Amino acid sequence: MTDIYNFSAGPAVLPAAVLQRARDELIDWHGSGMSVMEMSHRGKEFVSIAAQAEADLRELLGISADYHVLFLQGGATSQFAMAPMNLLRGKQQADYINTGAWSKKAIAEARRYGTVNVAATSESSSFTTIPPEDTWQLDPASAYVHYTPNETIGGVEFNSIPATGAVPLVADMSSTILSRPLDVSRFGVIYAGAQKNIGLAGLTVVIVRKDLAGETLDGTPSMYDYQAHADSGSMLNTPPTYGWYLAGLVFKWLQEQGGLAAIAETNQHKASVLYAAIDSSDFYASPVDPAYRSWMNVPFTLADAALDKTFLEQAASAGLLNLKGHRSVGGMRASIYNAMPEAGVAALVGFMQEFERSRG
Amino acid sequence: MTDIYNFSAGPAVLPAAVLQRARDELIDWHGSGMSVMEMSHRGKEFVSIAAQAEADLRELLGISADYHVLFLQGGATSQFAMAPMNLLRGKQQADYINTGAWSKKAIAEARRYGTVNVAATSESSSFTTIPPEDTWQLDPASAYVHYTPNETIGGVEFNSIPATGAVPLVADMSSTILSRPLDVSRFGVIYAGAQKNIGLAGLTVVIVRKDLAGETLDGTPSMYDYQAHADSGSMLNTPPTYGWYLAGLVFKWLQEQGGLAAIAETNQHKASVLYAAIDSSDFYASPVDPAYRSWMNVPFTLADAALDKTFLEQAASAGLLNLKGHRSVGGMRASIYNAMPEAGVAALVGFMQEFERSRG
Repeated sequence: MTDIYNFSAGPAVLPAAVLQRARDELIDWHGSGMSVMEMSHRGKEFVSIAAQAEADLRELLGISADYHVLFLQGGATSQFAMAPMNLLRGKQQADYINTGAWSKKAIAEARRYGTVNVAATSESSSFTTIPPEDTWQLDPASAYVHYTPNETIGGVEFNSIPATGAVPLVADMSSTILSRPLDVSRFGVIYAGAQKNIGLAGLTVVIVRKDLAGETLDGTPSMYDYQAHADSGSMLNTPPTYGWYLAGLVFKWLQEQGGLAAIAETNQHKASVLYAAIDSSDFYASPVDPAYRSWMNVPFTLADAALDKTFLEQAASAGLLNLKGHRSVGGMRASIYNAMPEAGVAALVGFMQEFERSRG
Repeated sequence: MTDIYNFSAGPAVLPAAVLQRARDELIDWHGSGMSVMEMSHRGKEFVSIAAQAEADLRELLGISADYHVLFLQGGATSQFAMAPMNLLRGKQQADYINTGAWSKKAIAEARRYGTVNVAATSESSSFTTIPPEDTWQLDPASAYVHYTPNETIGGVEFNSIPATGAVPLVADMSSTILSRPLDVSRFGVIYAGAQKNIGLAGLTVVIVRKDLAGETLDGTPSMYDYQAHADSGSMLNTPPTYGWYLAGLVFKWLQEQGGLAAIAETNQHKASVLYAAIDSSDFYASPVDPAYRSWMNVPFTLADAALDKTFLEQAASAGLLNLKGHRSVGGMRASIYNAMPEAGVAALVGFMQEFERSRG
């Protein structure tokens, strides 16, 4: 086996212990004679797997009985439509905070279903910061406020939960969920594609305050109706069973790490080591406002962009993979989700220092 | 490992060789140092996996360049809405053939988007047969004709492809795709949830004639637009990468079995052995018209329904799992997809004969 560290933005590195366990029980789950892949979603084996995963996620995030926890398909991109289709509830407008590429996609999709009030945007700064909350033009008549707590591409992350009063707050947490403790009670809806901190692409976790489900726009497909999924325990049709199972393994692994407080400490440390390496050198730079730097996605540039290609080639040779920045931003990006070990960040920092020395 | 045969209707048994290979390369795919689960969908490794799977599916089914092959999420239930949203194309009506539970679901969803002309139904026979094609009330003004070639619950299956002239034919092939050779050129759209003959729940394969994509109803979510998926090579957002990979392993396995002509011969033989066992005894009965009996899903009843529970318990003790019929039909159902070995059918038939003897 090649020894590597995978800094992909998603699908991304998974905990080694989770992969090991998935392999060990791939052909025969707990003596059932079946792979989880082969189990009827209605059978007692899978029903127990599904229920345990939900219970563990509720425990990790402290999710109260006021919320549905749904295990769906379609990624955040489906949620960009499902949010307005379910949450407009007779209103015509929603507020959106525009902090980057994923905010913009959510806004474009929402415009198919109602009026979008862009209450704040950091586009003039090329999305390298978060607009101060006291400048937001929220409209109390809006059905909800949507924001992106962590922008995977730009690497900007909110450091607190916005206050939106009685207007429900909706968050695309795809690239930050489970990276630290969270006060779920502050949110109307939280959604997250699983392929970063939860597990497999193809699973989407949605946490919906119960009073917000049940009313959809005309023409909403059954599969886009939160209440229909809630009523069927996320088995309106066959759910992505293997992704649900793997999410359960990741939740158990998080509990074994000490839960979200412990993982947050590790994440903060990993990020601070990497940002310190960037900031302590004129060879590297971070484009992001230090107050809003992501713990999960760390973009950085070389002072001499002509060296980018060499940097990426030599990094790959050293087993440091998928460090190329998103095509819309350029430079490098190191995604350091929960499953990235501290040793991976140390290896990257060591390589960066060595690369700088060799070119200095 | 418990030695079992799994007759689940889906998710269902997978080829043992496919599971073995998935396990062997779960942690490190081809020396990449990554699990397929961890690969960026834009990386060269996964792009090669995805392209190979599509090429192999095109080869198996003889799909011409006139068709897009899409690897999507959401199951057949999503397609129930996507079909009208994409295929009405300015028309108000579509024809539907109602042959069972899945047809009815497709009809109910399509009614959200236009007028459904139920051109034929076998509901009066409790869906135990297929309405003769010469009695169908097709309307040439309809945008398309939708049917369900194999009804997973009722166990009725078309034995030929309906002739619909210039009106595009749309088929939910979830439980019969890849069970035999197919003339794809007769269809406008073919869709199939993967969890029966393709692989993992959470992947949906859609084959769309290119001229039928590109026009959607107002309010169609981006993720429900065939053309948007086609334009992005099924990577409009992060696709269900592991399901796509596993489908590729199943396609390779099918090629190794000799392709669809060979698998059809095996499937026909498995079905005929099981139906012969049912028909040769007064203890068992098949509710389905012999002309339209499914090769994939075989419902059967005991003459004395009071014995059902004992039958199922003893079958399970003998390692014959998931034989309970759907709650809407009762009795038993043996799903014998491509991956069910002939030995599994032989074991079931042996058990049935022994059970009959012990009660005779």
